[in-house]
Amino acid sequence: MIYKDYTIFTPGPVKMSEEIMAVGAMQTPYFRNCDFSEVTYACERGLLEMVNAPQGSKVIFLTASGTAGMESVVMNLLTKDDHALVINGGGFGGRFVQICQTHDVPHADFKVKNTNLTDIEALAPNEAYSTLIVNAHETSVGHMYNLDAMGMYAKKNKILYIVDAISMLVTDPLDMQDSNIDVVIASSQKGLALPPGLTMVILAPTALAKIQEIKSLYFNFKDYLSNGERGQTPYTPAVTIMLQLEARLEQIKRRGGISQSIASAKEIATYFRDNITKLPLKTYTPFMPNAMTTLSPTDGKSAMAIVNDLEKNYKIMVCPNGGAECDIIFRVSHMGEMDKAYTDILIDALHDYYKINRD
Amino acid sequence: MIYKDYTIFTPGPVKMSEEIMAVGAMQTPYFRNCDFSEVTYACERGLLEMVNAPQGSKVIFLTASGTAGMESVVMNLLTKDDHALVINGGGFGGRFVQICQTHDVPHADFKVKNTNLTDIEALAPNEAYSTLIVNAHETSVGHMYNLDAMGMYAKKNKILYIVDAISMLVTDPLDMQDSNIDVVIASSQKGLALPPGLTMVILAPTALAKIQEIKSLYFNFKDYLSNGERGQTPYTPAVTIMLQLEARLEQIKRRGGISQSIASAKEIATYFRDNITKLPLKTYTPFMPNAMTTLSPTDGKSAMAIVNDLEKNYKIMVCPNGGAECDIIFRVSHMGEMDKAYTDILIDALHDYYKINRD
Repeated sequence: MIYKDYTIFTPGPVKMSEEIMAVGAMQTPYFRNCDFSEVTYACERGLLEMVNAPQGSKVIFLTASGTAGMESVVMNLLTKDDHALVINGGGFGGRFVQICQTHDVPHADFKVKNTNLTDIEALAPNEAYSTLIVNAHETSVGHMYNLDAMGMYAKKNKILYIVDAISMLVTDPLDMQDSNIDVVIASSQKGLALPPGLTMVILAPTALAKIQEIKSLYFNFKDYLSNGERGQTPYTPAVTIMLQLEARLEQIKRRGGISQSIASAKEIATYFRDNITKLPLKTYTPFMPNAMTTLSPTDGKSAMAIVNDLEKNYKIMVCPNGGAECDIIFRVSHMGEMDKAYTDILIDALHDYYKINRD
Repeated sequence: MIYKDYTIFTPGPVKMSEEIMAVGAMQTPYFRNCDFSEVTYACERGLLEMVNAPQGSKVIFLTASGTAGMESVVMNLLTKDDHALVINGGGFGGRFVQICQTHDVPHADFKVKNTNLTDIEALAPNEAYSTLIVNAHETSVGHMYNLDAMGMYAKKNKILYIVDAISMLVTDPLDMQDSNIDVVIASSQKGLALPPGLTMVILAPTALAKIQEIKSLYFNFKDYLSNGERGQTPYTPAVTIMLQLEARLEQIKRRGGISQSIASAKEIATYFRDNITKLPLKTYTPFMPNAMTTLSPTDGKSAMAIVNDLEKNYKIMVCPNGGAECDIIFRVSHMGEMDKAYTDILIDALHDYYKINRD
């Protein structure tokens, strides 16, 4: 098994709990029956509660990774008659732009930097939009936007508000009703700390009303919704991950609910950041999620060299960046089954690394 | 856990081996590195060898269920300038027809019954086709087509030959070179006996040459192929199932190779069929795969009543049919970790059922 004895701080897959891994070891059951429908219903209820979805909201369970969630939302809810304001602050914002381009959806590629968009009203190009699309946490750089402020902007301008919450759900607050969010996209292998392969789209009634007929079987939301009424999916679901999701939602509840999960992630993230302040590393953005810390060396060292050293000499996996950023930043996830003792492994390794590698 | 102590004979998910389930219990590792690329390469090599793919063939790994494999193949390889001959002998043939309709691919809906298409040349509507599409094993009724005969027909007429092998790989023979097959679609939760969520598309060079630009990110084969060169996928793969696939391919090899797996499935299927001949059940088709036996009551009993009785009184899951067929047939899978002792549980239950339910 690859990397069995590694300590991992990658933003997906993340460290899983023993309880959830144990479910992965069980025989996958047959699913076209009432017993599995109950699993689906339980997952839907748990997710809707977690994001405080408005009455009448529905969840679509896609056997797919997160990009399929992003793309299917654009395919089902937007047309050539829309005009989408796409927040583009990195790789995942760029992916939404690419999705709009691919599906001929008119859009503004709103490139942002050094802002969490609290003042979106002033910053956004002054055009009329039908839709606002954002990755709540732009995972490529660990930057978090102000969901509330964007929600107020969306409400005021009466536009559909689509939030990719893939890398912040469970660790950072999201409230569909408070923030006027119409669509939430989530994925299994981030804060939910399950294996990758399950993506969820949460649709408020405002979004449900916009679903159209599309030229696709696999991403056809209408089919998912009609099958969902009896707790089923049109095609084979990721049965094992669904069972793990059910167990995980129960676990979150047992541990004190979503607010406790968020508080715990915040505590761990703060603990990590507080304990590396003396090292020649600076945080990349002031708008950090609890989910992740992005660090940049201040002493001229290569970020990639640090990533490689941690892997080789300490059996620790943090996440490098690609392209031009590979020497500039690296990322440390706080998602999943984290505690201070686990985080100490990385803190200690970083201190040790800098003791050895004094320039 | 639902149905933990049930004996299952459903055609997906199927009974898994302890060895494979144990991999499912492990921490999902980070995958954007060379170690995971090696896993991908091993899976690709193993699959290509299993189907005797021609030199230069490639495998696309989709985080998705089987229908995504079927749909993405049509999207990437066919256009409005094609004319596809779609073999439609049941629900899954019908799905290919629906996919062609959805994506505006001209096609002939070739409805077949009571034939394995050994004489396809004589039976097929006499038109010019660019493509032949077939579900090797039409799982909705347990009917197997003659892959060789269709391959000869495809070769003679110089048409692309696409085989959905989802419900027969590992239990029934498939040889891309011998049968002139250009595309094979496979899925994790059938003969490969892994959890659902991974679908594989095997493309011979003849198929690779036909891949076009399409309006899709998630199903864009060109992206998968370019990422595949370094053992990666454009979007997060089903990491855990990929690791289970690697282990499963090694297991098949260790047990004597694919021919031994097929021989074993054939032995189990034959054993089952031979031991229920005295019961008022007849096999639904003479063209049965090793993967499955479809049975029809001859004494007027309802197939669904038998399915329900087996579940309720014997904790055995066989597979009911839907719609008009629900009283006529039920299905018994022989895929996965089957042996005679396991099969005896169903054989004994059926005999017991008929002893109790004499009319």
